[in-house]
Amino acid sequence: MLLSAALIAPLAGFSMPLWAQEEAPPVRETPSDVIAAATAEDWRPIEPENLLVMTLAEGAEVYIELAPEFAPVHVENIRRLARAHWYDGISVNRVQDNYVVQWGDPAEEEAERKPLPEDVVMQPPAEYEFETRGLELLDFTPVQQGHYTLQSGYLNGWPLGADQRLEVAHRGVNRVTVEPTTPGPHFASLVHCYGMVGVGRGNNPDTGTGAELYTVIGHAPRHLDRNIALVGRVIEGIENLSSLPRGTGPLGFYEDPTQRVPIDSVRLASELPEAERPRFEVMRTDGDIFRRYVEARANRMGWFIRPAGAVDVCNVNLPIRRVVAED
Amino acid sequence: MLLSAALIAPLAGFSMPLWAQEEAPPVRETPSDVIAAATAEDWRPIEPENLLVMTLAEGAEVYIELAPEFAPVHVENIRRLARAHWYDGISVNRVQDNYVVQWGDPAEEEAERKPLPEDVVMQPPAEYEFETRGLELLDFTPVQQGHYTLQSGYLNGWPLGADQRLEVAHRGVNRVTVEPTTPGPHFASLVHCYGMVGVGRGNNPDTGTGAELYTVIGHAPRHLDRNIALVGRVIEGIENLSSLPRGTGPLGFYEDPTQRVPIDSVRLASELPEAERPRFEVMRTDGDIFRRYVEARANRMGWFIRPAGAVDVCNVNLPIRRVVAED
Repeated sequence: MLLSAALIAPLAGFSMPLWAQEEAPPVRETPSDVIAAATAEDWRPIEPENLLVMTLAEGAEVYIELAPEFAPVHVENIRRLARAHWYDGISVNRVQDNYVVQWGDPAEEEAERKPLPEDVVMQPPAEYEFETRGLELLDFTPVQQGHYTLQSGYLNGWPLGADQRLEVAHRGVNRVTVEPTTPGPHFASLVHCYGMVGVGRGNNPDTGTGAELYTVIGHAPRHLDRNIALVGRVIEGIENLSSLPRGTGPLGFYEDPTQRVPIDSVRLASELPEAERPRFEVMRTDGDIFRRYVEARANRMGWFIRPAGAVDVCNVNLPIRRVVAED
Repeated sequence: MLLSAALIAPLAGFSMPLWAQEEAPPVRETPSDVIAAATAEDWRPIEPENLLVMTLAEGAEVYIELAPEFAPVHVENIRRLARAHWYDGISVNRVQDNYVVQWGDPAEEEAERKPLPEDVVMQPPAEYEFETRGLELLDFTPVQQGHYTLQSGYLNGWPLGADQRLEVAHRGVNRVTVEPTTPGPHFASLVHCYGMVGVGRGNNPDTGTGAELYTVIGHAPRHLDRNIALVGRVIEGIENLSSLPRGTGPLGFYEDPTQRVPIDSVRLASELPEAERPRFEVMRTDGDIFRRYVEARANRMGWFIRPAGAVDVCNVNLPIRRVVAED
């Protein structure tokens, strides 16, 4: 798999002291200060092909950014399902507190389910992790070490965990290739932070098509990492899912079909007329501004008496903003 | 501060391999298996003096266990406020997605607030952390290392972070005293897992009385640890708070006073007639059953292809059960 981005970020430099270091590092900026200091070049637009607009029955909208670099077959399935309007009329069927909201075809019997469009890949490969040897890692920014994975951080704007310390082996004009420093296969995967979106599957690993999706609404269930395909994240409107009534059945499924929350439509932004397309920008994670932001998140000021000196990859809260067209 | 419990748990023994260890450890039990195997001695009752019953306007109930060992002055304030029925008629005023639900006196002006009972300590000490040297640590069970704190685990049933590796220095008949292996003051604190309850405060550290409380409804905001007093946790009914509509004002405060969610009453279980007292039991964290449970949470079976081999202290999900009286 090829991951591409424009700028090179060296791995070293960002230190993560624990409490043991009683001298707090010099603190200069709040997270808001860093966002205010970001220039136009510090943001990247979300491509319309990677943006889903999900509209619930009462008009509430949920916006999802897709991550085709990490799960290309699953993401292409989701695009096909959206283009075929297959998601229209399905429902949110499961809301489990401190875990996930899940939506899909509510029919319990296989025979009663809506047929999938013909171009959907019925058994996508297990895009749950990827080999990192020789991978072009153009913008990895480390955040922490030793929590579930040896190394975690942000790669091309996405939270990543890896089982090795990622080392920059050599740089070309515009690329960094990763060579793990220890032998053996090495893997990395997206991580299950709050708001990440994944593809539900059955007990067999290859049973998730993208017709059944979920998002995390609680403490990061990192035990799901490498076990299921993550395909994106909710970037706006998650409160329309996270505040839904919890299901009272096993695993938080709604016991009464009338409790299900209908989904009116799911559209790719690229399918909408250009004037109606919502536009979002994500803070680039390959430059100095993001490292300043992470450091500010790790060392909060003002109200805080004791800055933590560290931040969980899932507490970074990557800045994402809506772009309003100028008249 | 003295922490007491009946059994002794040695520190060593529970290993936390990372992904790097590709051979999964032998897996024998699911978390449910362990709970089913627990005997009556593996559970401790929640004392009625440590149990709050909060009833919202439409009858929904939220049950909170207090942690007097960790924040004795704040907890005693909360008991006094509950006994005086001071909380009755206040409201939930803030619901911030992926962060906290907060309740208290909705009046914005100091002069308009309900006066506090006379026996409430207006400036409690900063019970945000405690010195561990010489502390009697009778049941610390380690869970992980190096995530925000050098060491975290469960102490007397509560999630704890510490800035040192806790070592068992010597054991008496019925006690373990901790002597940190490195010089200098050493601290530990409760940690902000999902559902933990804390005391809101202003910009000055000593401004929280217990009249304003919050609970965590998102990814553990560990940057709050050591900065504010944690006093307990929601043990049942958190969905009645976590599914409330999010506030649209700054920090998730409700902008329109009519959006606030009234609280009918908050009662200490010890104030209720004995026949009406709800009864709960918490899995003891000082014995073998809890270590088995943590290991099962770290190495999930069945649907999981790749057990994580580790578990975040905030993903342990300590078992708590309601006890129904037998006829």
